[in-house]
Amino acid sequence: MNDLLIKTQDIINSVKLNGDKAVMNFAKQFDNVFLSQLMVTDAEFYDSENIVSDEAKEAIRFAKKQLETVCMSQLANIKNSNKIESCEGVTCERQSRPIEKVGLYIPGGSAPLISTVLMLGLPSKIVNNPVRVLCTPPNREGKINPYILYAAKLCGIEKIYKVGGAQAIAAMAYGTESIPKVDKIFGPGNSWVTQAKQLVSQDPKGAAIDMPAGPSEILVIADEKANPEYVAADLLSQAEHDVNSQVILIALSDEFISRVKMAIQEQLKKLSRKNIIEQALNNSRMIVVRDISEAILKSNQFAPEHLILQVENPESYVEKISNAGAIFLGPWAPETVGDYVTGANHVLPTYGYAKTYSGLSVADFMKFISIQRVSKIGLERIGPYAEILASLEGLDAHKNAVSLRLAGIIKNG
Amino acid sequence: MNDLLIKTQDIINSVKLNGDKAVMNFAKQFDNVFLSQLMVTDAEFYDSENIVSDEAKEAIRFAKKQLETVCMSQLANIKNSNKIESCEGVTCERQSRPIEKVGLYIPGGSAPLISTVLMLGLPSKIVNNPVRVLCTPPNREGKINPYILYAAKLCGIEKIYKVGGAQAIAAMAYGTESIPKVDKIFGPGNSWVTQAKQLVSQDPKGAAIDMPAGPSEILVIADEKANPEYVAADLLSQAEHDVNSQVILIALSDEFISRVKMAIQEQLKKLSRKNIIEQALNNSRMIVVRDISEAILKSNQFAPEHLILQVENPESYVEKISNAGAIFLGPWAPETVGDYVTGANHVLPTYGYAKTYSGLSVADFMKFISIQRVSKIGLERIGPYAEILASLEGLDAHKNAVSLRLAGIIKNG
Repeated sequence: MNDLLIKTQDIINSVKLNGDKAVMNFAKQFDNVFLSQLMVTDAEFYDSENIVSDEAKEAIRFAKKQLETVCMSQLANIKNSNKIESCEGVTCERQSRPIEKVGLYIPGGSAPLISTVLMLGLPSKIVNNPVRVLCTPPNREGKINPYILYAAKLCGIEKIYKVGGAQAIAAMAYGTESIPKVDKIFGPGNSWVTQAKQLVSQDPKGAAIDMPAGPSEILVIADEKANPEYVAADLLSQAEHDVNSQVILIALSDEFISRVKMAIQEQLKKLSRKNIIEQALNNSRMIVVRDISEAILKSNQFAPEHLILQVENPESYVEKISNAGAIFLGPWAPETVGDYVTGANHVLPTYGYAKTYSGLSVADFMKFISIQRVSKIGLERIGPYAEILASLEGLDAHKNAVSLRLAGIIKNG
Repeated sequence: MNDLLIKTQDIINSVKLNGDKAVMNFAKQFDNVFLSQLMVTDAEFYDSENIVSDEAKEAIRFAKKQLETVCMSQLANIKNSNKIESCEGVTCERQSRPIEKVGLYIPGGSAPLISTVLMLGLPSKIVNNPVRVLCTPPNREGKINPYILYAAKLCGIEKIYKVGGAQAIAAMAYGTESIPKVDKIFGPGNSWVTQAKQLVSQDPKGAAIDMPAGPSEILVIADEKANPEYVAADLLSQAEHDVNSQVILIALSDEFISRVKMAIQEQLKKLSRKNIIEQALNNSRMIVVRDISEAILKSNQFAPEHLILQVENPESYVEKISNAGAIFLGPWAPETVGDYVTGANHVLPTYGYAKTYSGLSVADFMKFISIQRVSKIGLERIGPYAEILASLEGLDAHKNAVSLRLAGIIKNG
């Protein structure tokens, strides 16, 4: 077992054993924050309203409206009856139910992840999960960023706790005196959070999680007519996330790549996260291929979180893309707008997980119950086949449950 | 780390290192089977056709037809366009794609799990996963049960390998000389298989899995008018699976429970798996509650894999059930028919996982790509909000990707 795993398990065990007290101790130990209570008060919510600027409020509300539109459409699709009569007297249906208790995790750091609050909080609001909890680490003064509070309140989340790191995941997975235990935990985080999510998801008494996490990625496929400045800007926007961000360009000529590199150097001068970007770009790759088909083949193998098609007639390639979290089409669709305001969810599978996982949708905040209705006529129709199959599988108590009823029908009509 | 985990990890490591050779060695070591090749031959498929009786063929084909009907309806629902214009010039869509390579695991044992082959193989066929592999342990003579082969062929699965246990899961997760690496593994199994699935699913280089597994369960809610013989038969059918099966009855009186107990003793006499059933029943619970509402409250807390409502007007309670894998309504819907022939999938969440997981559907064999289209007008509309939000989050390279384009639009029109 590696060190991170052992230490994370220790934190989880402490929180299971000592609840709030452990959580407060970790805040002191790791973040030098002294907390006397974990839950954000009404007064703190109220203050946030006054701090957030009108311009910010308008932008947050716009992003919320966009997400809401898309979430409502997803929900309507799910609610479409999936009831089908498979043969006379036999119907199969799947009905959705909101997961009862969900926990949302928002990482701390220098800037508030307002958009992530919306991406997790909005679908949860639309689905109407009965219990909705949010954990996020406070600053040194024990305060939560007012923008986070404002966005959370917009999503109808009223229970916000000042807890970060593995201890936040443990608190939501097992519950403490003040933090309710939840059924499923959503949200990004550092390696401690990721490890803690993995551990609690393996424990049947813990909590399910949204999806496995890895470093964020962008792959841009650009043809000769693409604007090198736009391509450079999109690569840079991904690179500023983290030194481990994956940034890949697939183009049709060395000349085009040179133009992109020049544009990167030019734009980089003015960017505040230059340091992070330069480290991330050191791990980046720029590849020349013969044609767009070859580019798509490579992209499908990589299965990027974000795929940008800066090519002529991008629509014609969509059906050939088999693995990607999200595809952005054409020059006017920078990944940035997908992060904030298209209405789509920005929580997407990374690290090759797009081969099997999907981006977050309202369905992730629900589960489905299979409902099976069989009438007397239905049982007469399908029962005899069930008897044969149960016999073949050597399960005669299974067969008996049908035979007994069929005998009853013959006897009593 | 526990013993099972260490030993399973050892098996996985051996298969990663030595491929087919390791798999064949484990077959010798654990099952005393000597194999010279792992893949089932055409001749073996051909032989199975002749061994399977006409009656069995008809029943298997009927179950297949039922499942196909339900799967096709699910697929049609998924293919319904989920494209929405969130504002002028901005559309969000989710398109489904089949997972490229799937692996199905069918456990061995005394009787062939024909129905499980159909439950995994049919949705995979309908979804059209390009690579579909099935692993199942051979008998002492190195042969696969002909019923398994017949059912697999009906599902269009042509690559079947004679491998069982943790080594089968490892082979599919990492690939060997003869067994292709897959992206996602489906299917039930013993504790070795379950542990191996958990381990490979935690490795980004391994494979995703269908859902976590625990012992199978049934919960019957019966009112005073329910037929005690039917209730007894349903409880017995679950109990025969495994000594760890969970069997729960919630009723409205001690008298009713006594009648069920008598019926169990009577029916048990004739059942071949009496031994297993008696052990499972020792862990069973029969509870009296005040009314059906209280019964449903308890059932929702337990979140059973199978819930049978043997009550008057069962339809009226469906919406109150928040946690269950599958619900069977009324006297003519024994769980047995759901195992084989209603058309619904019998792979369902156990062990409380119904609180967050759903039974298998065609969607589990696919993933969804988010497709975002933004026109010039669209970017003018949403871009400024994205700029504000990127600034608030301190991500100015994100902002730059939008600003650059908006400046280009202003300049060039």
